[in-house]
Amino acid sequence: MNIRTRLVAGSLSGLAVLAGAVAATSPAQAADAAHSARSAHSARVAAAEPVVQTGTLSADAALKIADAVLKEAVKQKQRVSVVIVDRSGATRLVLKGDGAGPQTEESARRKAFTAVSFGRTTSELGKGITGGGPSIADIPGTLFLGGGVPVASGGAPVAGIGVGGAPSGDIDESIAQAGLKAVAGQLR
Amino acid sequence: MNIRTRLVAGSLSGLAVLAGAVAATSPAQAADAAHSARSAHSARVAAAEPVVQTGTLSADAALKIADAVLKEAVKQKQRVSVVIVDRSGATRLVLKGDGAGPQTEESARRKAFTAVSFGRTTSELGKGITGGGPSIADIPGTLFLGGGVPVASGGAPVAGIGVGGAPSGDIDESIAQAGLKAVAGQLR
Amino acid sequence: MNIRTRLVAGSLSGLAVLAGAVAATSPAQAADAAHSARSAHSARVAAAEPVVQTGTLSADAALKIADAVLKEAVKQKQRVSVVIVDRSGATRLVLKGDGAGPQTEESARRKAFTAVSFGRTTSELGKGITGGGPSIADIPGTLFLGGGVPVASGGAPVAGIGVGGAPSGDIDESIAQAGLKAVAGQLR
Amino acid sequence: MNIRTRLVAGSLSGLAVLAGAVAATSPAQAADAAHSARSAHSARVAAAEPVVQTGTLSADAALKIADAVLKEAVKQKQRVSVVIVDRSGATRLVLKGDGAGPQTEESARRKAFTAVSFGRTTSELGKGITGGGPSIADIPGTLFLGGGVPVASGGAPVAGIGVGGAPSGDIDESIAQAGLKAVAGQLR
Amino acid sequence: MNIRTRLVAGSLSGLAVLAGAVAATSPAQAADAAHSARSAHSARVAAAEPVVQTGTLSADAALKIADAVLKEAVKQKQRVSVVIVDRSGATRLVLKGDGAGPQTEESARRKAFTAVSFGRTTSELGKGITGGGPSIADIPGTLFLGGGVPVASGGAPVAGIGVGGAPSGDIDESIAQAGLKAVAGQLR
Amino acid sequence: MNIRTRLVAGSLSGLAVLAGAVAATSPAQAADAAHSARSAHSARVAAAEPVVQTGTLSADAALKIADAVLKEAVKQKQRVSVVIVDRSGATRLVLKGDGAGPQTEESARRKAFTAVSFGRTTSELGKGITGGGPSIADIPGTLFLGGGVPVASGGAPVAGIGVGGAPSGDIDESIAQAGLKAVAGQLR
Amino acid sequence: MNIRTRLVAGSLSGLAVLAGAVAATSPAQAADAAHSARSAHSARVAAAEPVVQTGTLSADAALKIADAVLKEAVKQKQRVSVVIVDRSGATRLVLKGDGAGPQTEESARRKAFTAVSFGRTTSELGKGITGGGPSIADIPGTLFLGGGVPVASGGAPVAGIGVGGAPSGDIDESIAQAGLKAVAGQLR
Amino acid sequence: MNIRTRLVAGSLSGLAVLAGAVAATSPAQAADAAHSARSAHSARVAAAEPVVQTGTLSADAALKIADAVLKEAVKQKQRVSVVIVDRSGATRLVLKGDGAGPQTEESARRKAFTAVSFGRTTSELGKGITGGGPSIADIPGTLFLGGGVPVASGGAPVAGIGVGGAPSGDIDESIAQAGLKAVAGQLR
Repeated sequence: MNIRTRLVAGSLSGLAVLAGAVAATSPAQAADAAHSARSAHSARVAAAEPVVQTGTLSADAALKIADAVLKEAVKQKQRVSVVIVDRSGATRLVLKGDGAGPQTEESARRKAFTAVSFGRTTSELGKGITGGGPSIADIPGTLFLGGGVPVASGGAPVAGIGVGGAPSGDIDESIAQAGLKAVAGQLR
Repeated sequence: MNIRTRLVAGSLSGLAVLAGAVAATSPAQAADAAHSARSAHSARVAAAEPVVQTGTLSADAALKIADAVLKEAVKQKQRVSVVIVDRSGATRLVLKGDGAGPQTEESARRKAFTAVSFGRTTSELGKGITGGGPSIADIPGTLFLGGGVPVASGGAPVAGIGVGGAPSGDIDESIAQAGLKAVAGQLR
Repeated sequence: MNIRTRLVAGSLSGLAVLAGAVAATSPAQAADAAHSARSAHSARVAAAEPVVQTGTLSADAALKIADAVLKEAVKQKQRVSVVIVDRSGATRLVLKGDGAGPQTEESARRKAFTAVSFGRTTSELGKGITGGGPSIADIPGTLFLGGGVPVASGGAPVAGIGVGGAPSGDIDESIAQAGLKAVAGQLR
Repeated sequence: MNIRTRLVAGSLSGLAVLAGAVAATSPAQAADAAHSARSAHSARVAAAEPVVQTGTLSADAALKIADAVLKEAVKQKQRVSVVIVDRSGATRLVLKGDGAGPQTEESARRKAFTAVSFGRTTSELGKGITGGGPSIADIPGTLFLGGGVPVASGGAPVAGIGVGGAPSGDIDESIAQAGLKAVAGQLR
Repeated sequence: MNIRTRLVAGSLSGLAVLAGAVAATSPAQAADAAHSARSAHSARVAAAEPVVQTGTLSADAALKIADAVLKEAVKQKQRVSVVIVDRSGATRLVLKGDGAGPQTEESARRKAFTAVSFGRTTSELGKGITGGGPSIADIPGTLFLGGGVPVASGGAPVAGIGVGGAPSGDIDESIAQAGLKAVAGQLR
Repeated sequence: MNIRTRLVAGSLSGLAVLAGAVAATSPAQAADAAHSARSAHSARVAAAEPVVQTGTLSADAALKIADAVLKEAVKQKQRVSVVIVDRSGATRLVLKGDGAGPQTEESARRKAFTAVSFGRTTSELGKGITGGGPSIADIPGTLFLGGGVPVASGGAPVAGIGVGGAPSGDIDESIAQAGLKAVAGQLR
Repeated sequence: MNIRTRLVAGSLSGLAVLAGAVAATSPAQAADAAHSARSAHSARVAAAEPVVQTGTLSADAALKIADAVLKEAVKQKQRVSVVIVDRSGATRLVLKGDGAGPQTEESARRKAFTAVSFGRTTSELGKGITGGGPSIADIPGTLFLGGGVPVASGGAPVAGIGVGGAPSGDIDESIAQAGLKAVAGQLR
Repeated sequence: MNIRTRLVAGSLSGLAVLAGAVAATSPAQAADAAHSARSAHSARVAAAEPVVQTGTLSADAALKIADAVLKEAVKQKQRVSVVIVDRSGATRLVLKGDGAGPQTEESARRKAFTAVSFGRTTSELGKGITGGGPSIADIPGTLFLGGGVPVASGGAPVAGIGVGGAPSGDIDESIAQAGLKAVAGQLR
């Protein structure tokens, strides 16, 4: 029997579509938004199938990303750490770069967590946070500085890459994107 | 047989009355308000009775709520988690929905905690939080995004239901309210 | 008016009966035993009633216990702390005695937690712990040194009193029992 | 393209085979054993596929298990809590039963965690723990009292069910098994 | 017999003087101010004396305060918790009032901690916190809602009393002040 | 001027007496023993005096001890850390020696905590711990390896010194004793 | 063979240069900036050398700093604590001053952590934090009140000194600077 | 000027010598032994040099080790995680292997921590732990199951590699050793 993952089977919509749908909502009002594009189908199937399949970045892919992040950091002369977490929030990879500060492990982890939670880059999400009232920035484990990028597969975020240590979030994000590029061609 | 509890016996005032009393106070100034409507009676009785009775949602009711939340989430095509905590803050139920993000367990828990702590929905409470100085949002364990609703019985909050994962707090709250509705007819 | 709670209504069996039932099981094999004597009735009722009543020691009773503990400690020339937790594990009272060591708050808390969890004194429970394999002593938050006594009402443990600081668990227990005695006459 | 999950594709061996392989090793010496039967294939595929699929119990299945656990506990007149965690260790479901002690949430969680970590019941695993030197019982988050059972799908553990609160681990396990039975027919 | 402590011996300045000195500094800029009035003398003596004496509220006094807080709360028909911490930040007393919310233990603790840390009421301190940049509100363990009052002896804060649970910080503070009044006559 | 503290005033019995009293009790049975010699007097006085005085090692004395520990460690060619905690368990000093391992900060802290909690050296206390059943070693924050020594003043422990990092507890203790000697002449 | 530290070999630029480079970036936008001046060389060397050398303040130097801080605090009549952390974020030294408040250990630690993380004083860094949106102040473990100063060696931050307890951050910083001065002549 | 690292300058003795010295001590009695061979010189130099150099594995070397661990695990058909920590205990790298259990991250971390703390493999160290009284196994953060190996450079442990997930500690260790071999040729 063919046990194609429900996540894949239930969705042809890519992350772009998903992000677009969410983008209409200001992050400050958004609460803790997950992507809902495929929810209806998913839940319907769930009644029949007790085990759902969740995509997780392979260890090999995680190493490739870390390697690419390291190389890009050298090229940009930055000292950074990189953390990759999966969609359950569990650690996939942590690598503290040479000379990276003690704050970079946790900042990178939270950026990765935030990106995989909301399926968008932390720089985009951060634009909606103003400090004037409750916002998703109040949710534990999140950080809305640039440097977190989601990894999507089958239309759903399967991992988050977080980079911390450069003097600006833009630089951190460009390094994280270089990491993502190393495996992006193989993602669907 | 008459199984009314002392909490019930001591109070005819419903949650509406209670909430009204508190509503006069801006949340930002409110400190950590508990409902005081029945305090005088309670404390007087306490002197005589070493054991007071506290209402707790039954496990059956918790499952009913979770089931209703799941069904409503499918209907609204959302991926959410739901958490129910009792008036002591202890966990009654946690259910992570299919495809819900890693941030949803803790955001749902905090919404539930906040709702049962203050006896009002988190969306109402959040309106008074402006980010301009100390507020009840500084109290550990709280979260003032929409999606938390109190469960009242005998005029006192006995549980909080928190839902997290939809792209806006309004949606989370509507799903939580669907959960509450599943047992509301049986509550006094 | 009749303020009996459902917990009381559902059970005439006192703690002695309960403890007897459990005593037949060696603690080392017992896993995390809760009292089951009234479970059948409770659960049956639960289907009909979404809110169950849980007995909690009143604040007044907690103060009475603390006062009696303090007096007994002076009488026995001991420096102790006392902690009372309710059946949900939440703190009811903490009082650090004059000159009590820094370890006494946590040791007293764990004794109280253990006593209310298993419905027996920690000294009884500790007899079954041998260190030779898995046992209930591996459950987080527990401590099996003498000094923890359960408070029962309506046949169920509603609180635990823990005392720590004396040179032996027997002394700690005798002080905790003095605390219990201060309210025991009023318990049903 | 057909993205069958690697976990499923790579293995025809069921849990029985797996458990057998591990059973040859005494738990006390076993370190933190994961199941290795399909590792070679998995890693080979990983080079080509950056996203691996991990089975997770559906929310519906989790509710079914919780419901069955509750019913069995009533039948056996026990007050228990049940926790289900997925293979990443993340919470899937928590349900505190009526009258269950405050220690049951954490004991049930750890039993579930242990069962999904090692792919065997906690009662089996516990037989090899003697307390005489380092053992897997020293690994944080584990508990080797009866009451934890793994849920297998496609030859790999995808979840752990933990039950705590009965006076013996055997009873806790029989209740957990009743929960597993509720979905076992649908598992592959 | 003369039981004056070195702290007392070294200072005739009361808390009023102390508070006045600190009051000149806006809390938002104040960093974590301790009272410095007597520092010169203390340190000079310290060179000669390896053991300094620190005032701590007695257990009896703590019980008196808790009792007065409870009575005042009944009078004001509020459901509150009270926490007393000593100058080292260690717990002296915790009492959760009947019907007090689950957030009240931690909010009361933090108010007590803040009051004993800075030697002023939390309501005074809170006036200087605006949310517009770094402030002492960023220091872990603090809370700047009304309800925390310092207990001074010999011109130095020796304890903090924190009350949480009323619908406004002003009410919490008036209840805490009633507690302080119960022992104030005996303080020097 | 007479700066004797109430603790001193109430007791002529030194630590030796105290330790002797406790020594009669096997640590394994001892529960969390505090010294009780002067309890009766203390508590009697407490009724009259709301503020009790607790001895604390001065910062100067702490630095002297750390300096002596460092010198002794060099002399013995050991790489160690030293931690001093006061009687409330709060940190007085931490110094990580050059080349000391990452485990030494926490092991030194726990030895210090244990010594000040029970008023005896950790090597003495450790002799009674056999691993065969519940013991004071189960109390959180303790460690019964050699290297922890109490600092007594006025017949009561006022601080604990903990040293960790040498290849045996005896060496750690000898280094800690060298630290104590640096201030012992000034202690009463 | 000559194993000169890569950190030293790769850089003649002092902290001034480094700080200058970073200063061009507003802290509020800066994300978690590490110093990048020498990154290119470092990483190039890394390919050849598996072990890099990290500068750490010696224990002797830490004691000298603590001693100078204490003396300056007495001179300024302030009650403060001082914490020194190394570039990995690990504790080097903690000293709680006589009469310093319970909040000072953690505030001093976070200032030290922040200073060594970003290589600038916390007072400089704090100027860019406005509370109006995400900023580096959201990174766990940081605190942007005055009183944290970095210790640089070989052009890189090797430690952070944090002081807390004075009524303003400026005073805390002046005391921390006095500590730095005690070893500054020996730093390169 | 030549700033050769003091650690290197001060020692020609390799890890073998070091380990030999420690090996004479039974782990069960050993307390938290650090290597003392070069302590005398180190401390003497410290008086002159305020900054000491500590060896840390480069990020490149960490990636090489992780890659080699992954390949060896595939070869041995095991599902493991690998963690590398530096001598300060800070994370250098974490990689969760495909299909590795949820317990493997923490077990691998603790093995790595233990190996770098004591400078020996966890399998060697574990032989001396019997469970019959206090031992170094009581130190927080340690784990004495096979799979932890130290990385030495210049005669001192600079990192620990921990592997967890195979059915026995011997297998875990052989995989960790394969990781070490990937960089061992370059270590001095």
